[in-house]
Parts: sequence; structure tokens; C-alpha cells
Amino acid sequence: MNLIARRNNEQETTTVRVGDVIIGGPQLVVIAGPCAIESYEQLLSTALEVQRLGATMLRGGAYKPRTSPYSFRGKGETGLEILSQIKALTGLPVVTEVMDARDIERVADVADMFQIGSRNMQNYTLLTEVGKTKRPVLLKRGLAATIEEWIYAAEYILSEGNDQVVLCERGIRTFGTYTRNTVDITAIPALKELTHLPVFLDPSHGTGRWSLVSPVALAGIAAGADGLMIEVHPQPDLALSDGEQSLNFEHFAQLMERVGPVANAVGREII
Amino acid sequence: MNLIARRNNEQETTTVRVGDVIIGGPQLVVIAGPCAIESYEQLLSTALEVQRLGATMLRGGAYKPRTSPYSFRGKGETGLEILSQIKALTGLPVVTEVMDARDIERVADVADMFQIGSRNMQNYTLLTEVGKTKRPVLLKRGLAATIEEWIYAAEYILSEGNDQVVLCERGIRTFGTYTRNTVDITAIPALKELTHLPVFLDPSHGTGRWSLVSPVALAGIAAGADGLMIEVHPQPDLALSDGEQSLNFEHFAQLMERVGPVANAVGREII
Amino acid sequence: MNLIARRNNEQETTTVRVGDVIIGGPQLVVIAGPCAIESYEQLLSTALEVQRLGATMLRGGAYKPRTSPYSFRGKGETGLEILSQIKALTGLPVVTEVMDARDIERVADVADMFQIGSRNMQNYTLLTEVGKTKRPVLLKRGLAATIEEWIYAAEYILSEGNDQVVLCERGIRTFGTYTRNTVDITAIPALKELTHLPVFLDPSHGTGRWSLVSPVALAGIAAGADGLMIEVHPQPDLALSDGEQSLNFEHFAQLMERVGPVANAVGREII
Amino acid sequence: MNLIARRNNEQETTTVRVGDVIIGGPQLVVIAGPCAIESYEQLLSTALEVQRLGATMLRGGAYKPRTSPYSFRGKGETGLEILSQIKALTGLPVVTEVMDARDIERVADVADMFQIGSRNMQNYTLLTEVGKTKRPVLLKRGLAATIEEWIYAAEYILSEGNDQVVLCERGIRTFGTYTRNTVDITAIPALKELTHLPVFLDPSHGTGRWSLVSPVALAGIAAGADGLMIEVHPQPDLALSDGEQSLNFEHFAQLMERVGPVANAVGREII
Repeated sequence: MNLIARRNNEQETTTVRVGDVIIGGPQLVVIAGPCAIESYEQLLSTALEVQRLGATMLRGGAYKPRTSPYSFRGKGETGLEILSQIKALTGLPVVTEVMDARDIERVADVADMFQIGSRNMQNYTLLTEVGKTKRPVLLKRGLAATIEEWIYAAEYILSEGNDQVVLCERGIRTFGTYTRNTVDITAIPALKELTHLPVFLDPSHGTGRWSLVSPVALAGIAAGADGLMIEVHPQPDLALSDGEQSLNFEHFAQLMERVGPVANAVGREII
Repeated sequence: MNLIARRNNEQETTTVRVGDVIIGGPQLVVIAGPCAIESYEQLLSTALEVQRLGATMLRGGAYKPRTSPYSFRGKGETGLEILSQIKALTGLPVVTEVMDARDIERVADVADMFQIGSRNMQNYTLLTEVGKTKRPVLLKRGLAATIEEWIYAAEYILSEGNDQVVLCERGIRTFGTYTRNTVDITAIPALKELTHLPVFLDPSHGTGRWSLVSPVALAGIAAGADGLMIEVHPQPDLALSDGEQSLNFEHFAQLMERVGPVANAVGREII
Repeated sequence: MNLIARRNNEQETTTVRVGDVIIGGPQLVVIAGPCAIESYEQLLSTALEVQRLGATMLRGGAYKPRTSPYSFRGKGETGLEILSQIKALTGLPVVTEVMDARDIERVADVADMFQIGSRNMQNYTLLTEVGKTKRPVLLKRGLAATIEEWIYAAEYILSEGNDQVVLCERGIRTFGTYTRNTVDITAIPALKELTHLPVFLDPSHGTGRWSLVSPVALAGIAAGADGLMIEVHPQPDLALSDGEQSLNFEHFAQLMERVGPVANAVGREII
Repeated sequence: MNLIARRNNEQETTTVRVGDVIIGGPQLVVIAGPCAIESYEQLLSTALEVQRLGATMLRGGAYKPRTSPYSFRGKGETGLEILSQIKALTGLPVVTEVMDARDIERVADVADMFQIGSRNMQNYTLLTEVGKTKRPVLLKRGLAATIEEWIYAAEYILSEGNDQVVLCERGIRTFGTYTRNTVDITAIPALKELTHLPVFLDPSHGTGRWSLVSPVALAGIAAGADGLMIEVHPQPDLALSDGEQSLNFEHFAQLMERVGPVANAVGREII
């Protein structure tokens, strides 16, 4: 079938614009920030630091899908308000997850880009509704989604008329237990062959261990990713979620120093 | 954590009532019917035949989650209306999938039991909303959900005050390619140990091949399942979805003949 | 390709004879015994008890493949000698694992049936050499072997002229963590369709938890297995390997009581 | 347990010497050559070309483990003889697979390094015997082996006194079907943390598609691999095995041009 997502001969990668940031062009894009928005101070300090170090977009979750109903599920509207304030202060475009089609308008007041999380990759209601908005979408891969199913999920958005879709590899579920998930690095060049959509890598969820984030991030760049999404927290030990996979400021600085040379080695740039 | 779903010492299996049907008691329950409602005639002929052969509940999809946005996605409201008519005619309680929280009321007008499909096992919006309804829920296992994640998904429903939840094993995704999914038969006794909720098996999706449905259905009964959900179609070759895993009337009759003795062998009954 | 292993139309299941025991006929065969032979007393008490309760073959490992080189790797030749003595005393035919082609003769002095373990399912040297012996072989499925690869592994043996091969499902490796492996119950009827070889189930390795062994064993019978291989130990808590998945005598007795009715329900018998 | 394989604080990576080639030092090592040795001409032309382009070791299979007993299983001793001649002509050290402990001496006459294939990662006989030889060993990861099991497999070799072990990631088996296997890129930095052994990547088996080999190879370098093993064939379309994942000379040349800059970007060199 001739999907909208398919790359035809010679077709260039689609560029997705999020504020002033262009995803899919020669410049790599680094999105950084905490897993969950915990407080104004936490998000502000993180935003300023990642911006100083070269990140050009901010991430931060207000609505958090959690395995247990009794876990911290994000600060919701309060979180969105904090995100709005930090965005105004720093000028960083922001991406945040939307889990419920009924929240789309509210989230759209703040978010420059919607994130669709792994658990919702086949939530067709949500895909269809964000498809109608024309707002850029970061579509994470489902935990056990094949490449084909993932492309079809993107097609749900594209077929509603929204062509601003970025695919984000974040690890799949395998028999492995040492890491939280198994990063499918080959998905990056595979998607580049099969589709014209930009492709991101999230090595934080992909590995689940902060010490492995940097080498896997570099691998993603070398494999052709258009950008990275990295979890950064001022004090990972105290994070309300995903602390063990979050970089502190020092480690994020080290990563950013190493990203540039690898980007250049594969013909890309970074600010 | 002391989950509502957990079985405490000596606690009996919760019984879930769907119309006159009791799930979780000594009698096994067989739910049968087509994957998708295609027409009044298709659903009527199937319903009459499966009822005659011992099924006590009818299944039939009006809203179908499909990998591709271009596949047949069910007849929607027209399908619900057909379902309503056949239910009135036969007296069979019906179960049908709800995919979108905004459809709950409409589906609830017809459905005696909501089905939450695999793709939506962690659609927390949907779980929460069906939790508020108090209507029985058949919660299918996610494609790559662990036992623990599945129990937590049930907990999302239970914690809203709805205790009428049935867990339905339908196969998980593994490296295997001969069958559509890999039936995790051990999940049945494992869930029986861990929770007090009734457990069903769907060998149709579990195997994806009609010739394997009957032996796996019998295995489920032997392993302690409280019931079966079986796809039946008057002419599987012509089915709009899942034809290759649907039993025709003759094969369903053969299955029903074989279910009784196995049920008795493990101390259960079937009508 | 026309494999020797393939079932042609109407072809009957091959019967494999191990001493007086016939595998693949109307009577189900239960092989029981400890994971590893630990002492004369341990094996003798287990053999007498399982024989009394209806097992017609004895298992016991002398050479044990272990993940770590520093784990207990079996008693080797001493173990074989004990096995030989208990076999003489009880008259039970015995099956034991051979891991090394150079041990085949030595093992053949005692074993009525060779076991090829999961790790060696594609050890082609070993398959070829046991193929040359004409001695019955119990071929366990590799941890991540597809149905097709497993049949080809059998073909390595069959193509050497040894037609006495029994396939033994013992669980595959998946993302699941609650059980040691995931029993692929559907493999049983699938192999019955595809091949004419008898099929066994080992629910002990398949589940890794003794409390789940019995329901899964019954499921295997209902699905059409020709027999079971069950780990039994006089004192599972003290076992040198696999204690957590071994049945004690009382639980094995309970299993044997439950096997008969299920066997009868699917048209099979048990002694 | 204090394994020999474990990296202690500050411990440097072990260097493995294969002829004049040093694996585990600052210089990356590229091993290239055909999957199977098919003829003198095929191996010679490949060896000369890969040598010219910067490979410093030659691979080529004489004994091929094949899923089906009826597939081409390598040229055996004839293959070894060809390998010996090409080695003499080019001066390239060679690595070739040993599948059977009884072949070790014969293979050792030619091979500078033994390869243990995925299917034999837990063939403890073979591991123990190559451990006794003190010859360098390239130990490929089993198809479904955890990181821990793989390290233990290395320990079987190390504990026999052979400390010349290189671990080679070659993809694991997952639910994915687009690629032959799923390259576990994170295994590279994980093994670097956990062990002091050099780590290689085989992107040919890892991906199964030649067009994906180069980007994944670069990813491996960026992630910290000490070298690459690449399948190269003069005419992949005519290869007797693995043609679809073999690079032709032109594509191998392109890869080698791209490897240098990425190596430099992560502080490594390549000849």
C-alpha cells in the first residue's frame, strides 16, 4: 500500500518545525529535561542548564502514565502551568506527553509538540485526535511494536492531515534483564530507508541506567538519528520517577561534549 | 502493596455476573461469536448456532482497533444496533470492545460487559472510565504485558470501585512465527494464585490458526480457566477480519463436545 | 522440502520404544525423577515412590549443563553408576542427558534413552552422533528455537537413520519474569500437525515453580501431549539444583491422581 | 562471585593478540571476509580487497552450523586448506569457527583465533576445550543469552587458563521480523562496565540486511566497540550462505571510509 509515511525515491526527510527548531535538517536536535515536572525550581534549574549546554528543546511530563494507579502520576494542570512559565522564561520550545484525547486542548495551550508515549502508540483515538491538530508529534515506539506497526501508527496521524511527525525509538521489550529495555539501534537506519520522517532516540528509557545513556546516545547519532531525547534531573537520587536513568548536570555536560565530534563524523552538526 | 486484586488466604474467586451468567463459579462459561459484526444475518446465524451448542454469551466487535488506518474498522453504531437486536432475540448477554472513553455510554446501552482489548490494556483513561461504570469488564492482556503489569491494569478498574473484572489471556508476543501469538498457559494458574479474579482464555487470538484453537482451548480448561472466548464465523473464508483463526459451526460443535469431559475431569461443569 | 520428520496425510504417530515402555501410543507416559542424581539413597527413594505412583520411566542427571562453571555440574560417572543400580533394582527404563559426543558410549551403557538438553538443541555434532546410535532420544526444545528449527534439529538425528525421536517442549525464553520460562502449549498440537514424532511436555523447567507444575501438566495432556517429564525430589528444599521447581512425593501423588481423568477426557489412558 | 571476567576498579581492558594484531588497544580492528569459504579464488580476491581497504584480519567459515542438515555445511578440511594458503599469501591472521571439540587440533593448524558461534555459546565441552588451548577465542553471543550467561560462558574459557577471549555481539532474537536479529547495542558499554574483555560487533548477522550494516557498524564504534566483524563477498548475490547480509567490495570500501572519522570522534584510531 502506498502509505503517506513511505519514503519514495530521492524523497528528502521531512522537516518538522517546533518553534524555531527544525528537526530533520542538518542540525541534530537535543531535547532534554526531567521525566516529570516536580516543581518550578526543579524545572527552571534544569531548563537553564540544558539550554546553556546546547539543548534546544525542553521536555517535562505533567501527565505520567504509570503502571500502578498508586504511583505518582504527575502534577497535571499545575505541571502544565510550570512548564508554561519556564517556556516563557527560557524561550525553549517544549514537548510534553498527552495521554487522553480530552486533554489535547489544555496541553496544546502550552506544548509546542505533543508526545505520544509507548503505551499509547496504538491508542487510535489519541492518534486520530492529535492528527487533527496539526501540532508536531513525537511518536514513541510501543514496547513490542514492530517497525511496520509503528509506521502504521504514524499513518493514523498523517492520514488526518498532520505531517509533522517524529518517530522516537525508546527501546523494546526483550528477554534481557540487565537493561530496562533493549534499544533497537537498527530501527534508526531502517526507518530512514522506509519513511521520510525524522527519527529520534531516547537512550534514557532505552537503557534505564544513566551510565549507559551516553554511549548509546552516541551510537544513535552514528546510526543516523536526527536527534536525542535525554532525561536530566538536578538530583537524580531524589527524582520522583526514573531517577536511575536520569543524567545529572555534570554527566549531561559530558555527553554534550562528546556528541559534537560524532555528529560531525557522520556529516551532521550540533549547535 | 496490598492491591485490591490480590487473593488473600482462603479468599474465594470473585464471581462476575453478566445478565444471568455467572463467571468464576463452578460452571465454565463459553463466549462465542464473530470477530467483527458484519451484518444482521451473519450475527444472527452465529448467535443461534453457538447458543444451541452451549455458549451462554455472545461476542461481536462494532469498534475494531486495526493496525492500519485503512483496514476495516468495524461498523460502529450500526454494529451496536445489530448487536442490540440479536441480544433481544436470543437473550444472550453480549460483550463488545470499547476503545474510546467517549464511546462508553453508547456502548453501555447495548453491552452487558465491556471488552478492553490488548492495545488498550494500559490506556489508563479508558480503564478509569470503565472503572466508574460498575459494568463487568473483560480485560485482555497486553501483547507484551507482564503478569504484574496486567494485575496493575485491573487495579486501575478496581480502584474506581468496579469489582467486576475478568482477566483474559490471549497470547503474548514472542520470537515465534508459526502462531500469531504465544499462549502463556501458565498465566492461568499464576493469576489464580495471585488474584481472586476470574480468568478466561482466548485461544483464537492466542494461536491465530483455527486448527489449533480446540486443543489449546482444552488446555486452558485443564489449567483452570473459568471460561473461553472463541471466534466463530459462518464462513471463515469470507470474514472481514480474523478469518484464519475463526471456527466454522462444525468445528465449534466439535470443540463443545470435547470441552465437557475435560471440564468434568478438573471438577468443573459446562451447560 | 520433504523432511523425514514431516507427517504425511493419515500417517500415524511414530511409536518410540524405551525398554517395555511405548511412547506415542494410546497410553501416556510419565517420566519422573530428580533433576540431578545426588546419592544412591536420593535416587532410590525417588524411583520407588514415582514407580509406585504410576511413573514408568526414571529421569536423573549425571552430567548437568550449568550456566556457571562454578556450579554443581553433576556427579558424572558416579552418577551413571548409581543410575545403573537403581535401574536394575526397579526395572524402570532410564533417560539421562548426554552433553558431549565423547560421552555417548559411556552414557549408552546405562541410558535407555538419551536426553539432549535445550542448550544443545543445535549442537550438531551431538545430534549427528546420537543419530548414529539408534538409541531413543528425547530432544528438548532450545530456549529460543522456533518450531521449524526444532524440527530441523530432529532431522539431524533422523537423517542419520535413528527414527526414535521424541520432542519435548520445556518452555521458551520471553520477556516474562514471573516464571522461569514460558510454556508454549500451542507447540504441542502444532508439532502434532507438522510431524509424526511423539511430543512430551516438561512443566518443571517450563514453569520453574512447583505450584504451577500440576495445572500446566494437565494442560499439556489436554493439548495432546504423549507424556510428561516431571522433576521429583524427596526434599526439594535441599536439592542441589532446581529445588524450587521439583515436586515432593505428596505433590507428585496429587498430580498423578489428577492426570488420569484428564487423559481419559481426551481419549488417552494412563496406567 | 568474583569472576575472572569481571572488571575490577581501574582495571584496563585486556589486550588479545592475534598474530601482530592487538585487540583491545587504541586501534580498532576490522575483521572481514566471506561467511563461508567457497573457493580459492573467492577467498583470495576478498582477502586482498579487504586488506587493501584496511581490514587487518580475515574471516572465513570452513565448518558451518546450519539449521537444516540438508543445507551447505561448509567445505570442511578443503576450506581450511584454502584458508591456510590465503593466510600465507596475504599475511592476514585468520579467524574461523570451530563447532566440534574433536576438530580443535585440525582447526588450530590454520586458525590464529577460534570462533565459537552463537549456537555453541553454551556448548560447555567446546568452551572447556578451547580454554585449554590458550589460542585467542572470539565468543559470539547466544541468540537468547543474557549478558550474565554470556559472561559465564566466557568464564568457562577463562577458568581453564585461557585469558585471550573477545566477546562478539551479533544480535539477539526478539519479536522483530524486519531484521534477522536485533542488535543489542547497549551490550557493548554494558560489557565494558562489567568485564575487562574486548568487545566486538558483527553487524552483518546482527541486521541480516546489507543496507543496514554500515550505519549499525558506525553505531558500534560510537558505543565503544573494540572492533567489527563484517561479511564481505565478491558477489553477494551468488553467495552460498548469508548473501543478503554481505557487503560487496564497493560497499565495504564505503564503510571503511566512514569508520575512521567515527573512531576518531570517540578517541580511537583505525589503520
